[in-house]
Amino acid sequence: MENHHQLRDKISSWLKAHRCKGTHLLQKLVQAKSTQGNEAGAQKIVIDTLTAMGLNIDVWDPEGKELQTHPYFASSKVDFHGSPNVVGVLKGKGNGRSIILNGHIDVVPAGDREQWDDDPYSGKVKDGKMFGRGVTDMKGGNVSMLLAIQAIQALNIPLKGNLIFESVIEEESGGTGTLASIERGYKADAAIIPEPTNMKIFPKQQGSMWFRIFVKGRSAHGGTRYEGISAIEKSMIVVNHILNLEKERNSRITDPLYEKIPIPIPINIGKIEGGEWPSSVCDLVQIEGRMGVSPEETMEEAKAEMEQWVRKLGELDSWFKQTPLKIEWFGARWLPGSIPTSHQLVSSLAKNYQLVLKKEPIVEASPWGTDGGLLTKVGETPSVVFGPGVTEKAHFPNEYIELDKVFVTAEIIALTVIDWCGIAETQ
Amino acid sequence: MENHHQLRDKISSWLKAHRCKGTHLLQKLVQAKSTQGNEAGAQKIVIDTLTAMGLNIDVWDPEGKELQTHPYFASSKVDFHGSPNVVGVLKGKGNGRSIILNGHIDVVPAGDREQWDDDPYSGKVKDGKMFGRGVTDMKGGNVSMLLAIQAIQALNIPLKGNLIFESVIEEESGGTGTLASIERGYKADAAIIPEPTNMKIFPKQQGSMWFRIFVKGRSAHGGTRYEGISAIEKSMIVVNHILNLEKERNSRITDPLYEKIPIPIPINIGKIEGGEWPSSVCDLVQIEGRMGVSPEETMEEAKAEMEQWVRKLGELDSWFKQTPLKIEWFGARWLPGSIPTSHQLVSSLAKNYQLVLKKEPIVEASPWGTDGGLLTKVGETPSVVFGPGVTEKAHFPNEYIELDKVFVTAEIIALTVIDWCGIAETQ
Repeated sequence: MENHHQLRDKISSWLKAHRCKGTHLLQKLVQAKSTQGNEAGAQKIVIDTLTAMGLNIDVWDPEGKELQTHPYFASSKVDFHGSPNVVGVLKGKGNGRSIILNGHIDVVPAGDREQWDDDPYSGKVKDGKMFGRGVTDMKGGNVSMLLAIQAIQALNIPLKGNLIFESVIEEESGGTGTLASIERGYKADAAIIPEPTNMKIFPKQQGSMWFRIFVKGRSAHGGTRYEGISAIEKSMIVVNHILNLEKERNSRITDPLYEKIPIPIPINIGKIEGGEWPSSVCDLVQIEGRMGVSPEETMEEAKAEMEQWVRKLGELDSWFKQTPLKIEWFGARWLPGSIPTSHQLVSSLAKNYQLVLKKEPIVEASPWGTDGGLLTKVGETPSVVFGPGVTEKAHFPNEYIELDKVFVTAEIIALTVIDWCGIAETQ
Repeated sequence: MENHHQLRDKISSWLKAHRCKGTHLLQKLVQAKSTQGNEAGAQKIVIDTLTAMGLNIDVWDPEGKELQTHPYFASSKVDFHGSPNVVGVLKGKGNGRSIILNGHIDVVPAGDREQWDDDPYSGKVKDGKMFGRGVTDMKGGNVSMLLAIQAIQALNIPLKGNLIFESVIEEESGGTGTLASIERGYKADAAIIPEPTNMKIFPKQQGSMWFRIFVKGRSAHGGTRYEGISAIEKSMIVVNHILNLEKERNSRITDPLYEKIPIPIPINIGKIEGGEWPSSVCDLVQIEGRMGVSPEETMEEAKAEMEQWVRKLGELDSWFKQTPLKIEWFGARWLPGSIPTSHQLVSSLAKNYQLVLKKEPIVEASPWGTDGGLLTKVGETPSVVFGPGVTEKAHFPNEYIELDKVFVTAEIIALTVIDWCGIAETQ
């Protein structure tokens, strides 16, 4: 059998030869506008691709009614009919470690059309970049995985372990697609998720969950506002108090993976709304935010800390003793994920990154949750996040990806899969 | 001619004898649900009443297209068709001072039906109180005026000066009804407006106007919130800064009429709204409020002070130098009004209050604007606000009025009109 460097050259050549085909596949996927509820078109392209590759294909619409009783179900939707999950399996020759390559097919909405220079689903290529909603988060990563598998197949490299490719729905809304795959039995010895990491390696991922706080006041006419209690003024105390909790929680983080991150687990207050009339004292403010959850804690621990912290408001202002805050946990939720930096999948990714790019990779903790939390904690499949997309452009207008990185990532993933699953002796 | 005490007894007796009729009229007016745009039914009742009284009646729909060019036009509506103003004139015998009795027929919406014990337009009477939207603000006051005129007519008291009764629309939304009456030529030597003052006498009325402030931030993913600028955090600085302006402005108020008022001219921040997604850094907050305007300043001076004050934010936080606040003045506006405490109409009201109720009246400055500002400043008709309604219940669920006060106020107004307009020699 040839050595690792020869293998690398062959994969690299194959990818170069198939650059047009890979770019075209990515473009078709972007143009298939797979926002929540509209994933079927893009999944059809994935199915056709997997069929051509000869994988064992499993396509099913996740059954919300069953999944909603799962303790880690976190979607506001229950009906996923018409939104299929797609899994393709490349069976190994045996006696090797299995791997899951997981990517989500759903994309967030394009948002304000005015802020896009082109049609948000154009898939237009310019200066080596492809533009469009979802190209970076994370169809580019999905194409890297497909190209990696195709290269391994084309070069007739017989893997020992099973390779499971997953194209899942609902990552952007709480992970129902990956949860459904786990529940259907898809587990492995490790997983790679090529979310847009700027090609950084993330063995840890911050989890997060959404909260909603109701701050009460007492109404009065604005002209005699001293007869009321302004929920807007009270909510300022609440916001400050929560920012202090963020400080407190982050002061405890000592993991070197967070060394360069100003706030490892932020609490973001993203939305505020209160009052109905300029001339009335506002009697109710609603605050919505996202609490970052450290890979070292459970969601339950983080929730409990927040709930206990807001109960302390009564010590700062007696108004909160009379009218305690109401806090709700709602909507999306992403489990934190963590595998040791010393995990062999991390070492292998780092080694192949170095081999391909001739420089040290950055190994960090991710500032956001992915399906990696579910895979690691619920699916017992240690997961690492590493992908070609541009972190800063995810969810933003004029989202793009650098096409070179899609192919370089494909190369690194192919080499890592080979390392991980092992090559069977050819007879 | 009989003396003042005899006159008082006669008016008092007449009012007692007509208590049922007066109560019934008030009930019908409340039941006629005259929210903005729906005033015609209630005005029909007023027209019928004035017709039976034999006054010269003037009914017209204010012409928005003409009025909107007036510098004091402050409505967001322009079309007032189907919303008539009603004026009834009782011509004097000559050589007397004229008086306007002004009340608005429009009522604010009932709001959350759940918070009302009964139908909001029931006009139900219980324990001497009548309940319903608008009964205190200010149909009770309107009935006091009508009863006062009816008593004067019934007792054949020939006034020297003209008496002008006005039932106007749109007070709750910026005063277009009273502005239209002024523009149609209705002016007088003084005016009484029986808004709900708890029978306090208000020679000064606080003005007010609405503002809207846009606070900008910079968006980012909540997981890397340190890459963004939170408009919610910045808006807290803005709210504090405005509360400091309120302190500054109120520290200048030395008028003894404000002695017992904790904040003579409040700035109420009534509404806040910002952000679209819990996991995103909020990049725009909109704040709406009401700025109280002192009777000693013009609207323009108050506006200029606010605009100058918010420009100082750049000194507190350089973010506001890069992205200055936008401030808009929108929606309703009430001119402040002021006549001297020594004005003869104030003395006369106070004297008659003392005569009827055997106690000193409270003379204060009102915490809110009325059409008195327009009448005094634009209509050159010095106005005083004095009425039977319950200040605390205006705009609130379960709004009510104490019926006794409607009749006592009628008595005081009748005596004051007689004092002001004078009694002609009978031939």
